[in-house]
Amino acid sequence: MDTWGDLVGVATGKVFVEGDLDAQYLGLSVNSTDPGDSSPFWHTHSKIEEIYLFIDGAGQMALDEDLVEVGPGTIVRVGPRVWRALRCDPTSISPLRWLCLRGGGEDLTSIGNDADIDSDRSWPWD
Amino acid sequence: MDTWGDLVGVATGKVFVEGDLDAQYLGLSVNSTDPGDSSPFWHTHSKIEEIYLFIDGAGQMALDEDLVEVGPGTIVRVGPRVWRALRCDPTSISPLRWLCLRGGGEDLTSIGNDADIDSDRSWPWD
Repeated sequence: MDTWGDLVGVATGKVFVEGDLDAQYLGLSVNSTDPGDSSPFWHTHSKIEEIYLFIDGAGQMALDEDLVEVGPGTIVRVGPRVWRALRCDPTSISPLRWLCLRGGGEDLTSIGNDADIDSDRSWPWD
Repeated sequence: MDTWGDLVGVATGKVFVEGDLDAQYLGLSVNSTDPGDSSPFWHTHSKIEEIYLFIDGAGQMALDEDLVEVGPGTIVRVGPRVWRALRCDPTSISPLRWLCLRGGGEDLTSIGNDADIDSDRSWPWD
């Protein structure tokens, strides 16, 4: 990885960057979802806080019972135990692209996988 | 604050965003330095890890004895106890703009101000 800009241009799906950076407390992923596509499932974290920085495209972010329109420049902080899901709007002229920052009260390796997923919960955009 | 994109466009100096976001573990600032200008001083953190995401402009980042060229898309992780300083190159056609993410092994409010500054250390770019 040379730059996060390169990743924003080429990455599809989710690429975790913190390993390449030897980061201890901070996680960073570069993400892309095509128009009409949604997250594979709702998920939540028991310990980790996330900040989403949206770069390109248009879409919606579901946060528990709320639905937020997101696009270039939108910033969303998600606290622990909030359920979240995303989709790229079918009318978006480009994939929805965002950076996701993660952090908690310990080393990320100590926290490990603190995620729960819900594959049965319906999307608010259907 | 509506979006981080708005901040990138208008902010001069340093704007801390985490308060507006009610963030607990993650810090985020939006930063801009004009061509030819440097950080006000070298600084280091005893506990906090930072990730710099450069957005615009051209410049140099000093990390202890190293000097790194930075520009749009450059990503730099800085561990605790590393001394750092930045400047926007005098020939840059735009201000050097970047996001700085911060995190440690505790709440940011528990960590508090863990920075040391050195106003006497010379710049590597003079």
